[in-house]
Amino acid sequence: MNPESSIPEGPWLAEGALRPLAQALRDGQREAASLARQTVEHIHRADPVLRAFTAVLDAADAQRRAQALVGQGPLAGLPVAVKDIFETADLPTAWGTPLHQPGRASARDAAVVALLRSAGALVVGKSATTEFAFLHPAPTLNPAAAGHTPGGSSAGSAAAVAAGLVPLAVGTQTGGSVIRPASYCGVVGYKPSFGWLPTAGASCFSWSIDTVGVFARQVDDAAFFVEALAGRRLVAAPLEADASAPAVVGLLSRAPWGEGSPSTQRAMDRAVSALKDAGVEICSIELTEAMTQAYDAHAVIQGFEAVRCLGAEWREHRAALSSELRAELERSMAFTPAAYEAAQAVAAAARHDHQPGWAGVDAVLLPSAPDEPPAGYASTGVSSFNRLWTLLGGPCVGLPAGAGVNGHPVGVQLVAPFGQDARVLRLAARLEASLARAAFDRGAAVRNDA
Amino acid sequence: MNPESSIPEGPWLAEGALRPLAQALRDGQREAASLARQTVEHIHRADPVLRAFTAVLDAADAQRRAQALVGQGPLAGLPVAVKDIFETADLPTAWGTPLHQPGRASARDAAVVALLRSAGALVVGKSATTEFAFLHPAPTLNPAAAGHTPGGSSAGSAAAVAAGLVPLAVGTQTGGSVIRPASYCGVVGYKPSFGWLPTAGASCFSWSIDTVGVFARQVDDAAFFVEALAGRRLVAAPLEADASAPAVVGLLSRAPWGEGSPSTQRAMDRAVSALKDAGVEICSIELTEAMTQAYDAHAVIQGFEAVRCLGAEWREHRAALSSELRAELERSMAFTPAAYEAAQAVAAAARHDHQPGWAGVDAVLLPSAPDEPPAGYASTGVSSFNRLWTLLGGPCVGLPAGAGVNGHPVGVQLVAPFGQDARVLRLAARLEASLARAAFDRGAAVRNDA
Repeated sequence: MNPESSIPEGPWLAEGALRPLAQALRDGQREAASLARQTVEHIHRADPVLRAFTAVLDAADAQRRAQALVGQGPLAGLPVAVKDIFETADLPTAWGTPLHQPGRASARDAAVVALLRSAGALVVGKSATTEFAFLHPAPTLNPAAAGHTPGGSSAGSAAAVAAGLVPLAVGTQTGGSVIRPASYCGVVGYKPSFGWLPTAGASCFSWSIDTVGVFARQVDDAAFFVEALAGRRLVAAPLEADASAPAVVGLLSRAPWGEGSPSTQRAMDRAVSALKDAGVEICSIELTEAMTQAYDAHAVIQGFEAVRCLGAEWREHRAALSSELRAELERSMAFTPAAYEAAQAVAAAARHDHQPGWAGVDAVLLPSAPDEPPAGYASTGVSSFNRLWTLLGGPCVGLPAGAGVNGHPVGVQLVAPFGQDARVLRLAARLEASLARAAFDRGAAVRNDA
Repeated sequence: MNPESSIPEGPWLAEGALRPLAQALRDGQREAASLARQTVEHIHRADPVLRAFTAVLDAADAQRRAQALVGQGPLAGLPVAVKDIFETADLPTAWGTPLHQPGRASARDAAVVALLRSAGALVVGKSATTEFAFLHPAPTLNPAAAGHTPGGSSAGSAAAVAAGLVPLAVGTQTGGSVIRPASYCGVVGYKPSFGWLPTAGASCFSWSIDTVGVFARQVDDAAFFVEALAGRRLVAAPLEADASAPAVVGLLSRAPWGEGSPSTQRAMDRAVSALKDAGVEICSIELTEAMTQAYDAHAVIQGFEAVRCLGAEWREHRAALSSELRAELERSMAFTPAAYEAAQAVAAAARHDHQPGWAGVDAVLLPSAPDEPPAGYASTGVSSFNRLWTLLGGPCVGLPAGAGVNGHPVGVQLVAPFGQDARVLRLAARLEASLARAAFDRGAAVRNDA
């Protein structure tokens, strides 16, 4: 028997959209304190198998805190998991490395944790991360694909939402660390525009690229979450409101990261059909020359900066680093300042190309990852479908698009230029609704056949 | 007798440019260990009066560490002070607030501290900051103006360089917290393009604006420092190399921050003459409409974000906050998400206007602050001449331009669009050299008269 099958179903799988729930918590029609207690008690039951958390509040504490949060902000006592590369003043931080085990609480919260608390969220625990948010796996299982990686680096955040342990979680993306685990675990991942959420208090891997992102079970939940944290007005009304507005989505006729698998092709076919059903125009587009070059520039910028950010660990604790991280740092030491400067120039040119209106499209649709989650736990997969967009700094919204050929989750992402978050979220909500209608119709067809 | 007059002259006042010194340290012609010991011993003697530091290594430790750094990077054992809003794994951090006194060491270094160590710098101490890098003064004196504020928020960093305690220091700027104290203390301040140096591990006040900057005694020292930290190639050769290249500097015919004082007018006259002497063309320009609006947008963005970043301190420790900070947070709670979104849109439009080539100039010249340092220690001055440029995110280089009508330092700044750091640094070095020649000539004239 797979261990995943022994994970009890989380309480959040049965909940609907979070905006009305938050309203019900504010109105007192739902009770934040009992919801918090139920949530944390469930985490304590499920997590010894799932291993999505590195630290969790105790249930009585969670209940007491949630009680005190009633009416204290838009997130009004909603439980949230925070990736364990963000420092917290109450729970220990260990950055996914044995170097800092067992972890310790910090004097102050990371900035995004301060935003969470200012918005009234209840930080119920720290979610497992790969080592320093790079490639060496977290111990987390994938609740949506027994025996397969949940992806990385924000493994615990994705898995905790997928298992219904929490409704919302915070992660980061430098390569594909939000969109990829969201895809593998079958949940929504949203990486907002670069800098919309603060990285202060997070571990730094590459300061030019590290981006804070979120996980949720529905697109509008993710939008609501980031609105509440960053104070941005992403949507004035529920996201489906402009379901018939004209919109154009581009498909790349070729890309430097190569073709997707049969599973991702299936997901793309479903997503394209769903967008067309929703009245969205589809067209074929090509990356600009600078954007194509920027795909390779990502590795130079990330590696050059990581060497400097993790220099102390490299110099003083090399033996305690994973082979993945050691190899990355060793390889990256060959990048010269001239190569770095050239890569930054390419990135700037590519960002300049990637303006609103680029190629006449509102967003680009592409797979969230090259395939379904790889089998086993040795690798968290690769970020080839993500890294260009992370470097460009625009919003990426990943959402589930059914199962692949092996029956595991496959996601697609919509990406847009910097600052176009509201537009791409509305498009993603439209795609999500259309995919749900198509799935319902297929189900109805099967039922009618029977 | 003023206490400032009892501060012994720091060893770094007698040193020349840092590039050749770093080379001498690498070659073994100068000894890093004894330099470190001498530096730290002097800090321990001078700082009880100056109060630029909140924590300092002991001399034997500094000597030992410097010895180990020989050949370990471009900064090769050079002593550096780091503003006490950056976390350090060896020295305590207290963010300038009694809330976290006496401070404690963190589990990991802030990212910019990691960069310092990766470049071989010796972090000799933490420099005093205003409360959370806002307005409530640090205890630091101004070594260049007895009885006058050193400015803020990076007071200790500016004062430590001005007194010759260290050759280099790190600070941050959200309003004018690098350029203003540099002006008041008579040193060079350089705020690089937004995001060129990482804020991870620093206290967050406003994530859209907080920028890491540096202090030095000469423009080329500051350029060398940021090159070594960020890996950027700012100057291929000593900065004076292109002393005769065509260049155009703009003067604003009017500005939303109003007129400068007689002292700043005198500094501007000197700087304009010096630029003309150096073959730089001067012209009159105007801010665009969006740039003018962005001046007011700064307060909205900073305040809206500070309310969220410092929410925990506000909710739980209000009585321990200064009246300045309480007033800022209270006032800023009135900013709605709609006002914030509008301010961000204005900032984006202003950044779009502020492209390379804007108004046909390479840089804008303006005073670093409204006047000489204000008398007393109750106020650190205002950031009115800085905040627009901080929000726009381009490089600002502030440098001394002689004395004002009261005999205290007055600085001017050159500012340029995002990414134009190399160009504006070269211009600043040219201005610096021309100002020095003019001062020498004035001195010669006085000597000839005698």
